[in-house]
Amino acid sequence: MRKLYIIGIGPGNPEQVTIQAIKAINQVDVFFITNKGETKSDLTQFRKEICERYIDEPSYRTIEIIDPWRDPTIDSYTSQVEAWHQQRALIYEDLIKNELQEDECGAFLIWGDPSLYDSTLRVIDQIIGRGQIHFDYEVIPGITSIQALAARHKITLNGIGESICITTGRQLSTDLVSSTENVVVMLDGTCSFKNVLDKEVEIYWGAYVGSDKEILLSGTLAETLESIEAARSAAREKNGWVMDTYLLRNPSARRLDK
Amino acid sequence: MRKLYIIGIGPGNPEQVTIQAIKAINQVDVFFITNKGETKSDLTQFRKEICERYIDEPSYRTIEIIDPWRDPTIDSYTSQVEAWHQQRALIYEDLIKNELQEDECGAFLIWGDPSLYDSTLRVIDQIIGRGQIHFDYEVIPGITSIQALAARHKITLNGIGESICITTGRQLSTDLVSSTENVVVMLDGTCSFKNVLDKEVEIYWGAYVGSDKEILLSGTLAETLESIEAARSAAREKNGWVMDTYLLRNPSARRLDK
Ligand SMILES: C[S@@+](CC[C@H](N)C(=O)[O-])C[C@H]1O[C@@H](n2cnc3c(N)ncnc32)[C@H](O)[C@@H]1O
Ligand SMILES: C[S@@+](CC[C@H](N)C(=O)[O-])C[C@H]1O[C@@H](n2cnc3c(N)ncnc32)[C@H](O)[C@@H]1O
Repeated sequence: MRKLYIIGIGPGNPEQVTIQAIKAINQVDVFFITNKGETKSDLTQFRKEICERYIDEPSYRTIEIIDPWRDPTIDSYTSQVEAWHQQRALIYEDLIKNELQEDECGAFLIWGDPSLYDSTLRVIDQIIGRGQIHFDYEVIPGITSIQALAARHKITLNGIGESICITTGRQLSTDLVSSTENVVVMLDGTCSFKNVLDKEVEIYWGAYVGSDKEILLSGTLAETLESIEAARSAAREKNGWVMDTYLLRNPSARRLDK
Repeated sequence: MRKLYIIGIGPGNPEQVTIQAIKAINQVDVFFITNKGETKSDLTQFRKEICERYIDEPSYRTIEIIDPWRDPTIDSYTSQVEAWHQQRALIYEDLIKNELQEDECGAFLIWGDPSLYDSTLRVIDQIIGRGQIHFDYEVIPGITSIQALAARHKITLNGIGESICITTGRQLSTDLVSSTENVVVMLDGTCSFKNVLDKEVEIYWGAYVGSDKEILLSGTLAETLESIEAARSAAREKNGWVMDTYLLRNPSARRLDK
């Protein structure tokens, strides 16, 4: 039976990989590495570095997957992404069938952790649902960019007994921030924190967290909003891509609670 | 200058420790290990196992900290915990001052990740605020029990573009579940999922996740509610303690969203 590993490799620091991940990586015959276009080639490079650094007997093969085109004519965001995942399922299925022998072991190396804003597990579920090929698979957790962000700012995500909401730039709303003490935002291409009305909300922001490009900024929105926006666009200009995430902390939501 | 490491060691699987954590552990002269009473001695044991397994030249000392008493006569939960943290700050400060030489390195090994429902960083902030002793410190992220839970159930925490709320048993409400697609619950001593009205909500539950005592159950609340409650209390009976966490997924909150 073919075996697949879905392995979290952390958010960009090669030392933020677990022993469990390293052991799994050493079992792998074929790495499937998705290539999301030139701007993300640093991410592909990081995956290769992980393999080179941690594999004891390098006899593995690497297969680059060109990501299918995402159809911008589909209106709803969710439907657009779903259609794209279906295409991915067909491509992955083909590769698993043709590139992996019956007794071999394949792997996808997932940025951060596989459970957080990553579609690989959904695509795997679709392949299983289609019932065309059979394989065992195992998921190995990784350090998320959220954990890395909190560690670098030396903060907890929550005050005593408080809740935490994790959301996307697209879903971030003023309501959410005023009702939740701690909001973590990912996948934000447009500095959505600018739209938060209460500028006394505190932001803990980080880009490329854990890597040698890391940038960290924090303070109230009033103090930091402009410098974060400037830092983000300068970094993006310079590196061709940027990945950033941040925690918004609302002290007034907290006070209500006591 | 004294140095402190606050190191995430994952939620109970000794292989879910990162290379970064292992490197830090190997620098440490003194481990401060809190002992939360007999029932939690498995957790203390796990910390010792991590040290024994990963430290190359064992010349470290271990200091067990008896956790201060939590005053049950203080009414508000938050104030009770705050008073308790203040006591902890005094105890930790004393130990750092008396047990750690000026050029030595101390560490706290944190269950899961230090940013998630853990008070060590808050206590460290209090010590710094008191200004009585000086030290450098660094935080090293760890795999959270949430990441471990999702990996073992082979699920993502969120559907495409959805938000995730992380909360405690104490804060879990019917409102929260009906308005949020994905709710992760931690620190729940009373099976609060029983109070969710909509029994079609799906639960992905796990206790002792990642360890050899691991129990996993999933399904709709209607199907699994009783078996989870039974499994939890049997496990607690048998082991003297239980740590469990779960994801509640509300498909109807999701449909509204599309
Ligand atoms: C598609 S999601 C994948 C998240 C990943 N699975 C994880 O566990 O962190 C990509 C988003 O993660 C965040 N991200 C990932 N790596 C990051 C890093 N090193 N620094 C800051 N943000 C990061 C950004 O918000 C980015 O838009
Ligand atoms: C004080 S909090 C600490 C959380 C920890 N810092 C983390 O990152 O997972 C303790 C709670 O974490 C959850 N937990 C920790 N380890 C667990 C495990 N191995 N399996 C299931 N739940 C766990 C339980 O909900 C427990 O009540």
